[in-house]
Amino acid sequence: MNLSNCVCILKSRRQKKGMGIRMSKKKVVVSLGHEALGYTTEAQWDAVKVTARALADLVEEDYQLTITHSNGPQVSMIHKAMTELRRVYIDYTPAPMCVCSAMSQGYVGYDIQNALRCELLSRGISKTVSTILTQVTVDPYDEAFYEPTKVIGRYMSKEDAEIEIKKGNYVEEDPGKGFRRVVAAPKPIDIVEIEAIRTLADAGQIVIACGGGGIPVIEQQHMLKGASAVIEKDAIAGKLASDLHCDELIILSGVDCVYRDFGTENQTPLPELTAAQAKELIAQGQFEAGTMLPKIEAAVSYLENVPDGRVRITSLSHVKEAVKGRAGTLITA
Amino acid sequence: MNLSNCVCILKSRRQKKGMGIRMSKKKVVVSLGHEALGYTTEAQWDAVKVTARALADLVEEDYQLTITHSNGPQVSMIHKAMTELRRVYIDYTPAPMCVCSAMSQGYVGYDIQNALRCELLSRGISKTVSTILTQVTVDPYDEAFYEPTKVIGRYMSKEDAEIEIKKGNYVEEDPGKGFRRVVAAPKPIDIVEIEAIRTLADAGQIVIACGGGGIPVIEQQHMLKGASAVIEKDAIAGKLASDLHCDELIILSGVDCVYRDFGTENQTPLPELTAAQAKELIAQGQFEAGTMLPKIEAAVSYLENVPDGRVRITSLSHVKEAVKGRAGTLITA
Repeated sequence: MNLSNCVCILKSRRQKKGMGIRMSKKKVVVSLGHEALGYTTEAQWDAVKVTARALADLVEEDYQLTITHSNGPQVSMIHKAMTELRRVYIDYTPAPMCVCSAMSQGYVGYDIQNALRCELLSRGISKTVSTILTQVTVDPYDEAFYEPTKVIGRYMSKEDAEIEIKKGNYVEEDPGKGFRRVVAAPKPIDIVEIEAIRTLADAGQIVIACGGGGIPVIEQQHMLKGASAVIEKDAIAGKLASDLHCDELIILSGVDCVYRDFGTENQTPLPELTAAQAKELIAQGQFEAGTMLPKIEAAVSYLENVPDGRVRITSLSHVKEAVKGRAGTLITA
Repeated sequence: MNLSNCVCILKSRRQKKGMGIRMSKKKVVVSLGHEALGYTTEAQWDAVKVTARALADLVEEDYQLTITHSNGPQVSMIHKAMTELRRVYIDYTPAPMCVCSAMSQGYVGYDIQNALRCELLSRGISKTVSTILTQVTVDPYDEAFYEPTKVIGRYMSKEDAEIEIKKGNYVEEDPGKGFRRVVAAPKPIDIVEIEAIRTLADAGQIVIACGGGGIPVIEQQHMLKGASAVIEKDAIAGKLASDLHCDELIILSGVDCVYRDFGTENQTPLPELTAAQAKELIAQGQFEAGTMLPKIEAAVSYLENVPDGRVRITSLSHVKEAVKGRAGTLITA
């Protein structure tokens, strides 16, 4: 063993200590729903301060966080703004959905990284928090493209709706209110910037990534072409937790835990589930598409890839108790 | 020496080899001007393909790139769009400049990382390219705040201008055309997400950061408050190259090199300059504020921090020749 190797080992040890990496840290992906954010720029700034407190609690519980978030209202706001821009200034070309999605990652990521950094500093924790702009490949033959389900943007007149249809876009009528664009929600295949996310997470930093499910792109030889689609943020959270081989996946939702017979007189909280039980409940049609179903599907998919992993489904206000096993639903393989 | 140390060294070696880090790689910050991007979403997508070719040439010349870029037209477009949005939908709150800036980093970063990844793959180079959303602190007492110089957004009527003035914003009249908002261009103090940028650069990845000069923020205890300002992108490029202790800083401009008596009959190209000579030319008033002056100032500032560094000022189309010493201007300490 020569001197340069000695130095290398010492450096490596010091870095590990300096960065605060201890073996006890639990690597987790946290998926934030729209409850964690806001519908307008002002409301969001207020909301992320509350969100930051819940996330900082997890950091204090020795979690090493990678954060992903929804972007429905945000991308919708930006899409509306870019449409209005083009109405007034005709020299601007239309902004495709992928560009609106990239802008929304910038917007939401900025607010979260700012609020979380501030909350951590106020607790005496100095930690780099940053956002990685993320693209996610989807399959152009994903069946979701044949049956778009995600409503986006403003209400349109019948004339404007016909223009959209001519462009090859899907439009849905909301009787009495008007027409709205509908896009597909295909399954995520690959997280294009996964190595950047992994590098930062491995260095003990907090990373915000795959915002809004990631910018959906289709591989065309070497090129990645933006797709008119939205990736379900819970689906990408499961994929991200699998790729990073996280110890846990925490999915934050509008309800405190998973329920059987949700919304009925007989609704029963489910504090613990196995993946097999979860699949059985899916088969029974227990979970609503677009709300709880994608969360349970993401949990099952992650546990298939990481059998010793743990999934917690709870609300922002219950997460501190949930990680101590006193609230929420815990799903294991 | 125990077994775990052996494994550690082997891993470390393998990682270094796998990531393609060789001692011969030259660490560089490349600053892209608005020529490298586009004024509309479509024009930008065409422009970044050309830009990506120039950047990929640098990668093939064994440069390890960290990229920063301007965002004038982009942030202006987003600011206009958010203003139009609020005219139509009054329930939306106004988007502050810092939010527009974050969105522009998402927008431009997405296009560059996408185009560069594609160009590299087409040359058989597989390299992670990602964008880090970046905030940069500025001094609230920076003299630039007392004399705003950066024009942003759309022309306004006199009535709208008066509303802006009442809100405490600066407005400038362009006779015959209307009124426009003007913001300050303060000096950058600290790059908030520098550790994330450094970690990725040290891992041999290509990073896009500090887009549009970074989101300008003012420290208020632990909080970072968005400032109504724009940071000069060349100033932040110099700061970034200093912080990363880069071997080179390449500033891409609209002209092929630095000239003495630029724009006159006597204009003379300057292939080489020392920092002292550059300062002398600044003192003579040789460089125009807002175009060449901030580039030369950034060069001088970087060389004061990294005396063995090299600065190249050239255009996108000349950069391949410039790094071989056959074009552009080379500035050294």
